[in-house]
Parts: sequence; structure tokens; C-alpha cells
Amino acid sequence: MNQARFFKLQQVLNRRQPDLTVITDNVHKSRNLSAIVRTCDAVGIHQIHSARPMDGYGTHHGTAKGSHRWLGVNIYDEVSTPIQQLQQQGFKVIAATFSDRAVDYRKIDFTQPCALLLGAELEGVSAEAAELADEHVIVPMMGMVSSFNVSVAAAIILAEAQRQRDEKGLYDQCRLDTITYQKTLFEWAQP
Amino acid sequence: MNQARFFKLQQVLNRRQPDLTVITDNVHKSRNLSAIVRTCDAVGIHQIHSARPMDGYGTHHGTAKGSHRWLGVNIYDEVSTPIQQLQQQGFKVIAATFSDRAVDYRKIDFTQPCALLLGAELEGVSAEAAELADEHVIVPMMGMVSSFNVSVAAAIILAEAQRQRDEKGLYDQCRLDTITYQKTLFEWAQP
Ligand SMILES: C[S@@+](CC[C@H](N)C(=O)[O-])C[C@H]1O[C@@H](n2cnc3c(N)ncnc32)[C@H](O)[C@@H]1O
Ligand SMILES: C[S@@+](CC[C@H](N)C(=O)[O-])C[C@H]1O[C@@H](n2cnc3c(N)ncnc32)[C@H](O)[C@@H]1O
Repeated sequence: MNQARFFKLQQVLNRRQPDLTVITDNVHKSRNLSAIVRTCDAVGIHQIHSARPMDGYGTHHGTAKGSHRWLGVNIYDEVSTPIQQLQQQGFKVIAATFSDRAVDYRKIDFTQPCALLLGAELEGVSAEAAELADEHVIVPMMGMVSSFNVSVAAAIILAEAQRQRDEKGLYDQCRLDTITYQKTLFEWAQP
Repeated sequence: MNQARFFKLQQVLNRRQPDLTVITDNVHKSRNLSAIVRTCDAVGIHQIHSARPMDGYGTHHGTAKGSHRWLGVNIYDEVSTPIQQLQQQGFKVIAATFSDRAVDYRKIDFTQPCALLLGAELEGVSAEAAELADEHVIVPMMGMVSSFNVSVAAAIILAEAQRQRDEKGLYDQCRLDTITYQKTLFEWAQP
């Protein structure tokens, strides 16, 4: 590994956001999941949580562009497990879902510890998960089609999260704990 | 057609943005093109321009969710054709591409007549098209992976365009000319 590469790894770790994450509920097309992982890497997410990714995960490496290497994907049988674990750690769970209590996604404070919850192409976020979520958000749509592709909705909302966190300086100082930082740097630096 | 449906068609046409469009350069995975079309519909784009969509267009109806019905897709052999035609009509062509002259996409005024130019997974925007473009933009990335999936990049930039146009009231009054409006309403209202 040359020095420029080692510097790049450190620079990326210095911008990782341990208090921002994504939960996917039943998103089972691995192509969608891979595109989401690639976007998560770009906004500094370090771990995501995926309930019932039925197709399996990782078959569309093309779409993920190798980003699975840079991001932990934790798999669960029940979506309630990561939701409740994250809430116990102080995260707000923000479901991207159409409902009476949904607000415009730009109204949410994404600089607080939070997890964006996304649903599947046909079913959307499950009723159980929507019920457990702290907030519901929608991305306003002006056309005939009633929803975005899930990886598109994820990207629009995460770009707003990144904008808010950038404005607040959250990418300007290292936010990973020392152990995670050192362990990840060691893993990434392996050939 | 019931009245609610007819009202919905009119409402969508009242929000169409004839001075906002997308040009794709060599984006030949029809799955990507379909996801882009679906996003375009959602931000009120009425026509897009696609140079050399090699796979053909329209095979992934699942991803487009029927949005091809609501949007004109014009096909070209050469990307220079739609770029120059749109420039003659007073559009600024804004290429999403990594270059020395690229600025943060949020710095661009998307309320002016403009076309977002997008490139392919491997090659990106061609040198020829980049040269012809009026501006270059990038979406900042904080991770290891060096680019977004093209439909993701399109969505992030178009969401910003929509935000700016919404703020300026461009969705509050009908902006299509009467002939296009009537013709489209007639077509859409067919069973
Ligand atoms: C294709 S959509 C699901 C549509 C589903 N038929 C429904 O009605 O919920 C897939 C996922 O993308 C997200 N999504 C898509 N469009 C959205 C929007 N406009 N606002 C918020 N989330 C959206 C949601 O998480 C949704 O569960
Ligand atoms: C996968 S990228 C192409 C990457 C290509 N290897 C390159 O270096 O240009 C596909 C298209 O998505 C758009 N794109 C992806 N990430 C972008 C970013 N961060 N900023 C601007 N445009 C981006 C561009 O239009 C690009 O041509």
C-alpha cells in the first residue's frame, strides 16, 4: 500500500458518522441494496442494518462498486430487532413512508443520532416497523408516479442528511471511537 | 375515467416544467434509464433526451413503474444534437461530471432553463459532451467509492432543482403552452 492510499483510508475514516445509519425492511432486490450501500459509503455511513434481504446480499457487486468492502451490513430476521436496539442507544428511527403523520424530509434534524428506515418496492415499510418508528418522512412528488425507487429515495434523503451534517461541521473532526478506527484501518489496509 | 383521475392528470400537467430537462450520454443500461425517467416524472420533467441508449429503452418497466407513459423520451445518435438544440433554445447544459471546472451542484441556479447531462457507468460523460456543456457539477462524496450510480446522482441533483423551483413558485402556475397541455391531457386521458 502506498502512502497516498493510506492517507485516503484515514481521510475516509475521519469522516465516518457512527450516529447515522440505515435500516432496510424487506428490501430484497440485492441490486437495490447494493446501490443503497454505495450511497451510504458516500455520505459517511459505517454500518447498516438489513432485515430479511431475501435474495441474499452481495450478488450485484457491479452496482455496489465494491462498497460492501467499506461498510458493515448487519442482517436480521426481524426488523424490530435493529429498530429497538438503535432506539435503546439513543437513535431516532425515521421511516421513509407515506402516512398521515409523515412530514417533508427537509423538516427533520438529521444531525441527531438517527437511522433512516426504508421499505420494499411493493410492500413499502411494514406496518410493524412504521409503528415503532419515531418519525415518518416523505419526499414530495409532483408527477404521475406515486413513489421513487427505494435507492433513489434513500439517496435524496441521505444527501439532505449530509448537507445538514456538513453545515454543522460533523465531517471536520474524527467521530469514530479509537478501537473501531484502528480495527477498521487495519482491515482496510490489508491487500 | 372518473373525475378524481381527470383532476389528477390536470394537477400533474399544471406542475410540468418545460424548461427543465435531462440529457443522457451513452447511459445504456435500461434499468438506469428507467429509474431516471421515474425520478424525472416526480420533479415535473416532461421530456428527456437520450443519446445512444444502446440496450434499447423500455425493457425494465418494473423500475420505471409505468412512468414512460408520462414522459417523452427522445432518442439521438449523437449527444451533440440535443445539447446544441437546447442551447439554441436558451437552455444551459449542466454536465454532472468530475473535472477541474466542476462546482458543487448546490451552487447552480436550477430555476433558469437548464438540462442536466449524465454519463454512463464506466465511461462517464464523453469528452465531447463535457466540452460542449456550459457548467460542470459534482455531488461531493465522503467515502471510499468514487462515484454514485447514475440514477442516484440524477436524483440527488434533481431533488435540489425541485427544491429551488418550489421555493421560487415555479410549481404554482401552469407553465406548459396551451397546445402541449391540451394534446397531452387528451393522450393521457385515453384508456
Ligand atoms: C417503491 S417505494 C414503496 C412503495 C409502496 N408501494 C408504498 O406504497 O409504500 C420503496 C420505498 O422507497 C421509499 N420511498 C419511495 N418514494 C418515497 C417518497 N416519495 N417518500 C418517502 N419514501 C419513499 C420508502 O421507504 C418505500 O418503502
Ligand atoms: C458511475 S458514474 C461514472 C463514473 C465514471 N467512471 C467517471 O469517472 O466519470 C455515472 C454518471 O453518474 C453521474 N455521477 C455519479 N457520481 C457523481 C458525482 N459525485 N457528481 C456528479 N455526477 C456524478 C455522472 O453523470 C456520471 O457520468
